[in-house]
Amino acid sequence: MEKPDFAKGGGILPVVVQDAESLKVLMLAYMNEEAWRKTVETGKAHYWSRSRGKIWQKGETSGHFQEVLEILIDCDMDTILIKVRQHGGGACHEGYGSCFYRRIDGDGWAVVEPRVFNPEEVYGK
Amino acid sequence: MEKPDFAKGGGILPVVVQDAESLKVLMLAYMNEEAWRKTVETGKAHYWSRSRGKIWQKGETSGHFQEVLEILIDCDMDTILIKVRQHGGGACHEGYGSCFYRRIDGDGWAVVEPRVFNPEEVYGK
Repeated sequence: MEKPDFAKGGGILPVVVQDAESLKVLMLAYMNEEAWRKTVETGKAHYWSRSRGKIWQKGETSGHFQEVLEILIDCDMDTILIKVRQHGGGACHEGYGSCFYRRIDGDGWAVVEPRVFNPEEVYGK
Repeated sequence: MEKPDFAKGGGILPVVVQDAESLKVLMLAYMNEEAWRKTVETGKAHYWSRSRGKIWQKGETSGHFQEVLEILIDCDMDTILIKVRQHGGGACHEGYGSCFYRRIDGDGWAVVEPRVFNPEEVYGK
């Protein structure tokens, strides 16, 4: 299979993560080639953490893993879109279903989603 | 309003562009602070072109502009999600409605969307 063009992003590419059923955009993450390979092989989403400098399987701490149902690539082969079934409470480490839980509202940001889990209970303090 | 954290991405941040009605992910683009400001002020999507090193209004050549209906931000304030009404043929310069027109299918990529316009007619040769 022709692989995504990891060289273009200096080794890592952005991955749009969408709920396969609701079509809600859950998060944006990054993959390097190893995270890509593990995701394709296992059917569970693996990402490259830019802050921690390592591969992680989404949900390895929280249990909120992502089952990958569909993998798409964009015209330039430099952005990946995965459609997933989100297991557990939600995708966002802040306790929301989606990381995009705030919307512009006048001069500020309004929270537009309910919290679905308590991050302190899931991740510890 | 608290602005997206442009410093985090070295001045540019990724923007997920979603069709407000179908919820299809149309493309991934980038904004710097000026593109962000123009988008918020005009209600039409403006992006930073990494290859051309300049701001562009989506549709300035093709006429396929994007009317911005909703702007969301992620937990880390470093990824933007906009929901748009796509005017004209489609979002992808290859002639498809979405840039994500190929999906993994066995060992290759299968085109899963019909072409909705002829790029040569829209962009010239």
